[in-house]
Amino acid sequence: MDISIIGGTGDEGFGLTLRLARAGNRVTIGSRIAERGSAVADTAREILGAGATVDGAANEEAATADVVIVTVPFGGQAEIYRSIKDHVKADAIVVDCTSPLATAVGGRAWHVVRPWHGSAAEQAKAILDPAVRMVAAFHTISGEALQDLEHEMESDVLVCGTDKEAKAVVGGLIDDIPNLRWVDAGDLTQARIAETLTALMISINRTYKIHDAGVRITGRDAWGLPGS
Amino acid sequence: MDISIIGGTGDEGFGLTLRLARAGNRVTIGSRIAERGSAVADTAREILGAGATVDGAANEEAATADVVIVTVPFGGQAEIYRSIKDHVKADAIVVDCTSPLATAVGGRAWHVVRPWHGSAAEQAKAILDPAVRMVAAFHTISGEALQDLEHEMESDVLVCGTDKEAKAVVGGLIDDIPNLRWVDAGDLTQARIAETLTALMISINRTYKIHDAGVRITGRDAWGLPGS
Repeated sequence: MDISIIGGTGDEGFGLTLRLARAGNRVTIGSRIAERGSAVADTAREILGAGATVDGAANEEAATADVVIVTVPFGGQAEIYRSIKDHVKADAIVVDCTSPLATAVGGRAWHVVRPWHGSAAEQAKAILDPAVRMVAAFHTISGEALQDLEHEMESDVLVCGTDKEAKAVVGGLIDDIPNLRWVDAGDLTQARIAETLTALMISINRTYKIHDAGVRITGRDAWGLPGS
Repeated sequence: MDISIIGGTGDEGFGLTLRLARAGNRVTIGSRIAERGSAVADTAREILGAGATVDGAANEEAATADVVIVTVPFGGQAEIYRSIKDHVKADAIVVDCTSPLATAVGGRAWHVVRPWHGSAAEQAKAILDPAVRMVAAFHTISGEALQDLEHEMESDVLVCGTDKEAKAVVGGLIDDIPNLRWVDAGDLTQARIAETLTALMISINRTYKIHDAGVRITGRDAWGLPGS
């Protein structure tokens, strides 16, 4: 499956690049400047070794993939989506990983602002063609932990979206990452809650002087596809 | 320690009554009607056996305890706090367990409304004497699981509050319940996030057809008092 990661040069995006490429996926790192994407793709291939397929591209080109993962800070999120909207395929799956942290307006990382559309993911959906299948995910996964390939992932991924098939596809990618589990958290509006967990984790990190607080959902031995 | 539970006749409140009384605490169940509180206290003593100290009282009397735990639906929360405000001691610790579920306005239990003060706990704080030490907790703990004394608690309690000593006292009560852990989630404003987790758990329960989804915080082996 063709996957691109817009913002793949940042911590979260680069971590997802490494994990998804190591699982055998072809990953394109999108960047505002194509050369920057290519340089970071070189670094990824150096880390992963010869078998990995990672390329770099300008965001507009990366946006044409089947699955487009967007990992950018909230302050620039709308602008990025407007810049790629004419390039995203109508049947694409777009995975938004944005958390509306108050840092976007000079505030604290353990506070959030409230996007007009309810969540950052819904703001993104409002910019793209209505046919695009939007999924929100990865808010509780630290970029640092993703990048450390020896680190066993402990936190679960909450997946929100209205299209069940799109959630299953994204869930399949998550299942390819060792020890990472996904939980179907409901429709896209549930991102209003899931996105704010990033700030809560940062608050806990700050209180306990740690770096990678996460959440595991309890109440069932296995999660993933509901009904399975 | 004298503990009272306003709303102790409801699922969450009765579950906390059983668990805290079993741990050796003296618990008063508050109810709008004193006789109703006493009747439910009788039931609790029947379940727990002779050693347990559980009494019933009218809310106004129950509100004079050292630690007042309030477990009421959001729709009636402000009214309950106004009815007890003149009875709560100035140095009391008040633990608010309210989640602003949209059911309060005829909506869905997996949606929330946004309290004017930011969170239900901050709304409660605004009603009480400013000296009262407010803590928000127990949003991710199912009343059903608490009432089933054979059930090993799996979900962590997120504790929010601005007074560190008050959080430590509440944390001590939580530590008395077998398998229950508490995580200091930050100051009282973090309840804006923690309270909404109830709705997210209900969304997950609904999707997976289960009853007690919860959260465990990962990233540290032990939680509780920060710095310990």
